[in-house]
Amino acid sequence: MIYVTRKAHFNASHRLHNPEKSDEWNRQTFGKCNNPNWHGHNYVIEVTVAGTPDPDTGYVIDLGALKQIISEHILEPCDHKNLNLEVPYLRGVIPSAENLCKIFFEQIEADVNRTVSQGSRLYSVKLFETERNVAEYCPDRV
Amino acid sequence: MIYVTRKAHFNASHRLHNPEKSDEWNRQTFGKCNNPNWHGHNYVIEVTVAGTPDPDTGYVIDLGALKQIISEHILEPCDHKNLNLEVPYLRGVIPSAENLCKIFFEQIEADVNRTVSQGSRLYSVKLFETERNVAEYCPDRV
Amino acid sequence: MIYVTRKAHFNASHRLHNPEKSDEWNRQTFGKCNNPNWHGHNYVIEVTVAGTPDPDTGYVIDLGALKQIISEHILEPCDHKNLNLEVPYLRGVIPSAENLCKIFFEQIEADVNRTVSQGSRLYSVKLFETERNVAEYCPDRV
Amino acid sequence: MIYVTRKAHFNASHRLHNPEKSDEWNRQTFGKCNNPNWHGHNYVIEVTVAGTPDPDTGYVIDLGALKQIISEHILEPCDHKNLNLEVPYLRGVIPSAENLCKIFFEQIEADVNRTVSQGSRLYSVKLFETERNVAEYCPDRV
Amino acid sequence: MIYVTRKAHFNASHRLHNPEKSDEWNRQTFGKCNNPNWHGHNYVIEVTVAGTPDPDTGYVIDLGALKQIISEHILEPCDHKNLNLEVPYLRGVIPSAENLCKIFFEQIEADVNRTVSQGSRLYSVKLFETERNVAEYCPDRV
Amino acid sequence: MIYVTRKAHFNASHRLHNPEKSDEWNRQTFGKCNNPNWHGHNYVIEVTVAGTPDPDTGYVIDLGALKQIISEHILEPCDHKNLNLEVPYLRGVIPSAENLCKIFFEQIEADVNRTVSQGSRLYSVKLFETERNVAEYCPDRV
Repeated sequence: MIYVTRKAHFNASHRLHNPEKSDEWNRQTFGKCNNPNWHGHNYVIEVTVAGTPDPDTGYVIDLGALKQIISEHILEPCDHKNLNLEVPYLRGVIPSAENLCKIFFEQIEADVNRTVSQGSRLYSVKLFETERNVAEYCPDRV
Repeated sequence: MIYVTRKAHFNASHRLHNPEKSDEWNRQTFGKCNNPNWHGHNYVIEVTVAGTPDPDTGYVIDLGALKQIISEHILEPCDHKNLNLEVPYLRGVIPSAENLCKIFFEQIEADVNRTVSQGSRLYSVKLFETERNVAEYCPDRV
Repeated sequence: MIYVTRKAHFNASHRLHNPEKSDEWNRQTFGKCNNPNWHGHNYVIEVTVAGTPDPDTGYVIDLGALKQIISEHILEPCDHKNLNLEVPYLRGVIPSAENLCKIFFEQIEADVNRTVSQGSRLYSVKLFETERNVAEYCPDRV
Repeated sequence: MIYVTRKAHFNASHRLHNPEKSDEWNRQTFGKCNNPNWHGHNYVIEVTVAGTPDPDTGYVIDLGALKQIISEHILEPCDHKNLNLEVPYLRGVIPSAENLCKIFFEQIEADVNRTVSQGSRLYSVKLFETERNVAEYCPDRV
Repeated sequence: MIYVTRKAHFNASHRLHNPEKSDEWNRQTFGKCNNPNWHGHNYVIEVTVAGTPDPDTGYVIDLGALKQIISEHILEPCDHKNLNLEVPYLRGVIPSAENLCKIFFEQIEADVNRTVSQGSRLYSVKLFETERNVAEYCPDRV
Repeated sequence: MIYVTRKAHFNASHRLHNPEKSDEWNRQTFGKCNNPNWHGHNYVIEVTVAGTPDPDTGYVIDLGALKQIISEHILEPCDHKNLNLEVPYLRGVIPSAENLCKIFFEQIEADVNRTVSQGSRLYSVKLFETERNVAEYCPDRV
C-alpha cells in the first residue's frame, strides 16, 4: 500500500456554537471558542490517497489533479470565509476540527476516487486548526 | 549587542476595511480580505529585546517576565477575539499586519523597558499573519 | 473513526544507562547518550484520541481538557526535571523515547478515557526526542 | 506496538519520463516535471521501525545504527545525484515519490530487520518530495 | 520602519561550475555540488520590503501584488527549470545561493519599487537552498 | 552586502546558577531553570557570515568549511554534554542563551575570518534554546 499526501491551507473565521442549547451552555462548553464576534485560524489540510501506483506514470494520483480537487471543493468555498455563515455544505454543522475533516472528506471523495489509479481510493483528511490542535478522519484505519 | 526573542501565538478574526472609503473601494483594494463576515488567522508574534546581559543573571531580560508582558498586553486582549470590534487599543485601526505590529510594539514598550537589564530596550515586534505573510516593526534598524 | 491530536512540549535532562550492566557495556551500547553528567532535550509530545464526535459539541474530546491532563501527568512531573532521578513513575526505567512514550500513555490513559466522548479512547502517544528521532506507542494499530 | 522513526535528507535532480511512451504523452502527463533539462528537490525521508523495545537497552532499534543504514543505502547513492541516471537500483524506474519510497524500503529492509530488537521489523518509508507532496510505503497497514 | 515579508518557493536543478577553470579545480572547489549530471533543491525565497504603511490601506505593499511580481520574475522563469541552462538572466552566473539572491533582488527591484507605498523600497531577498544553507542580499543593512 | 547562514544543532544539559549568590537568590531568580539535577535542550545554532562573494566561486564562505568550523568548536565540545561542567571555554559562565551565543561567536571568529572571501567576516551567532526562546549576538548591527 502506498499513501500519497497533498497539503494545502486556507484562512477562515468561525465560532463553536450549538443553537439547540442555551447561551449559558454554549459559553460553559466552548469557552472563548464561543465568542459571538468570531475568531479564526490558518487551517492546514492534508489529503491522503491510498493505493497502487499506475505502472505508466508511477502515480497513485496526479498531485496536480488532487490539488485542483482540494481547491475547488475546499479552498474556494472556505478561504477567507466565515465557516458558520458562508459555506453551503457546512450549514447546520458545528465547525469543530472533527466535524470539518469528516465533511471535507465527503465533499472530495467522489472526485478523488474518479481520479486515482486503479485500486486506489481517498484514505484520510487531516485538518490542523492550529499547530497544536489537529483532527483526522480516516474511516478505514483500525 | 545581544538580541533576545520570545515567540507567542494567538487566534483571532479580522477584516481589512477603511470606513472612510466606499464599499466599492474597499472591495477593490482589499479583495477577499474585505469579507464583511470576517476571516481569521493563527497569528504568531516574535518580540525582540536588544541590549547587554546583566552580569548577575546572564539575562538581557527574564524571558518568563517577557512572556507575562506579551500575555497581558497582547494575548489576553486579542486571543479568540475580533480585532476590529473587541480590542480597545485597535479601535479605528485597519488591522493589517503592518499596523498591528507597530501598535503591539507601542503597547508593550513601557513595560518591557522597565524590565530589561541596564542599557537594554525593546527592539522589534514581528507578526506572522500566515507562514507566508509577515510584518515587523523595528524603529531603530537602518 | 476520527483522530484528534494535541501537541505539547517540555525540556528535561536524561541519560541512557542500564544499572544491571557494566559501565563498559553501557558506554559501548549507548555511546554519548550514556554521559554520566547528563544531556537533555526539548521533548515534543503528541497525544491522539480516537473515536466519534459527541453530537452536542462536535468534540471527540475537549482539547482544553486534554491539555490539562497532559499538563498534570506529563509536563508538571517532567518539565525542567532530570528524567532518571526526579520523576516517580520513571524510577527504574531506561528513559529511551520508546520507554517514555509507552509510560506516558499508561499515565494518562485512565483520565483521558474518562473525559472522551462515548465510544472514544486514547489511541497513541508520540514523543519527539529531537526533530529527527521519534517514538510512538499505539497499542491498537496493526 | 512501538514505532520508532528516524529522519534524514538528501538533494537530487530528477525528471518524470516514461521512455516507452511518446514525448507528447510525457509532456501532457507529467507537465513541467518532464523538463528534459531536469529539476530537483530537497528530499526528506522518514524511516519507521515497528516492534518491542529490547529490555536491556529500551531500544526498538539503535537509531545510530538506523542512521548508518539509511546513509549507506539511500544518502550515499542519491545525495547530489541525478536519480534517473546515476543510481544503479533506480535504473528503469520512473522516479515518482511513490516509486522511490517503495524501492528505498526494499533497499534497506534486510539490513534493518537484521538490526532491530527481537519481534521488530521495518514498517514504513515516507518521502517528502516537497513540504506539500509526500508518499509513504507501508505494506502492513490497512 | 516597518518590514513586510512574502515567502514563496520553487524547485530547480543546478550545478556549481566555473567554466573558466579546469575540471579538476571545479571538482576540488565544489565537490559533489559540481556533479555534471546536476542535483537540485526546493528553494524557498523571502522578499522583504521596508517602509511606511499607506494611511488609506495600512499596507507597505499589497502582498498580493508582491506575490505576482515574485511569480512573474522568479517562479515562472525558474520553477522546474535548470538554473544553469534555462534562465536567461542567470546565463554566465555560477548559481550559488549568494549569486542567486542578489540577481533575484535586481530582477524584481524596479517592479517592487513602483508598487510600494510612498517612502518604501525593496529591502532584501533571502534564499534558502536547504533548511540549513541560506543566503540574503540586503544592500542597505550595516 | 550578502549574508550567508549555516544551521546546526546539538543536545546538552545545563542549569542556570550564579555561584556567587545564595541558593535562595538563585531559586527566586532562575526558578525551575535552577534545578540542581539539571535540565536540557535541543539547541539550534545559526551562524551568519557577511560579505562579498568570491568571483571565482560565488561563495562568501564555503558552507562545507563553515560546517567544519562549527562542528569543531561548538558541536564536538558541547553535544551530549553538560554545559556547566564539561566545556572548558564555558567554565565560570552562567549558560544563558545570551552568554552562550556571545562565547560561541568568539570561539569561531578567528577560524571563520581566516576562511571567508576577501572583505567578508563573521556577522552573528543565533542560538535557539527552544523554538520560543532565542538569543543572537551580532556586534555590528545597530
